[in-house]
Amino acid sequence: MITLYHCVAARSFRPLWALEELGLAYDVKMLPFPPRALDRSYLSVNPLGTVPGFFDGEVRMTESSAICQYLAVRYGDGRFEIAPSEPEYGAYLNWLHFGEATLTFPQTLILRYGRFEAPERRSPQVVSDYTRWFLGRLRKLEPVLEGRAALCGERFTMADVSVGYALLLAEYLGLAGDFPPAVARYLAGLKERPAFRRAQAAEEAAARAQGVSTQPAPLTLP
Amino acid sequence: MITLYHCVAARSFRPLWALEELGLAYDVKMLPFPPRALDRSYLSVNPLGTVPGFFDGEVRMTESSAICQYLAVRYGDGRFEIAPSEPEYGAYLNWLHFGEATLTFPQTLILRYGRFEAPERRSPQVVSDYTRWFLGRLRKLEPVLEGRAALCGERFTMADVSVGYALLLAEYLGLAGDFPPAVARYLAGLKERPAFRRAQAAEEAAARAQGVSTQPAPLTLP
Repeated sequence: MITLYHCVAARSFRPLWALEELGLAYDVKMLPFPPRALDRSYLSVNPLGTVPGFFDGEVRMTESSAICQYLAVRYGDGRFEIAPSEPEYGAYLNWLHFGEATLTFPQTLILRYGRFEAPERRSPQVVSDYTRWFLGRLRKLEPVLEGRAALCGERFTMADVSVGYALLLAEYLGLAGDFPPAVARYLAGLKERPAFRRAQAAEEAAARAQGVSTQPAPLTLP
Repeated sequence: MITLYHCVAARSFRPLWALEELGLAYDVKMLPFPPRALDRSYLSVNPLGTVPGFFDGEVRMTESSAICQYLAVRYGDGRFEIAPSEPEYGAYLNWLHFGEATLTFPQTLILRYGRFEAPERRSPQVVSDYTRWFLGRLRKLEPVLEGRAALCGERFTMADVSVGYALLLAEYLGLAGDFPPAVARYLAGLKERPAFRRAQAAEEAAARAQGVSTQPAPLTLP
């Protein structure tokens, strides 16, 4: 049985979305955000206190984009991934990493120093530096997405889950108004996928059932 | 022919090290650090201005840990990776991502706001926040490395290249004194690998031959 520890709209949305794309059975455990502060018992599950916490039998994982690749390889039967024999395999791996390391981490700076820290520890300079940094990196996406609905292989893959979540997070942060047109269109298309909608419905239902706030983590004020 | 754009001791050291482990032929193009400021012509090669820039025929990649996974799959013949059929495949993917997204990105904050920015834009608070953040994440490594020379599969893999480089960078930043004992021992073991030494010799020789400073990028003052 697959178990996913998740906070509403946090990075753990990537594996949740991937699970819905694959149609797999799973158990989702909702945590208040940030779990490190609000649910100390989670530290016995994942000592880092981060989400996702992902368990599949003996497999334990914490990196959201890696979990998506794992799920496609283990359960996808060729769907949602690019095979090593295909010309775009390198591009696929690159986008999987790019979505998290290059497009998501900078946004955690914007969140931390713009919202989560106490007022005297906030830094408008860091927020501005990494807003610029993030929007600069989007330039790489624009020509790739011109006239396309997926990043590579001419089909939806876990690379789109990785990058798509980064764009969703940016939308929560109020940056969507600065998206280049093809990027905005791409995100709109992803959000219409039935599995994306099922994932959002599943997190809301699970939050209600488990007595956790349905407010998206990026908008949470501790 | 494989071409790698590289700055001394930058993240592009990961694919350089991987190429040496695999014994592949490659062409390394050295750039002054930071290339975005010091070699504007590089923007026509990689519009983001980041290293690595990696080219293998039609394949173009920019994410250092993804390139290592790609190289092992494409050229490793089973070496330096964990196969999807093995129990530790999930752990392998997780460490590949963890090395970059979780262990390296925080260090770029320490570099930026501790060294690279003009004095009036530096932030001792951010440096201290992300030093603590990085060292906290190392706690996850310690129990895994206790009595082991590799992260997963009981053999050296590209996951060790990904995490190993993050530790090497931390050593440049003066953080090695705070490494837990098993982490310090692990890095010392990695640095004794013949391919690691060949990679360091190759970057130094290429820098001299191409008229680029041999000073490690993390220690560069712009």
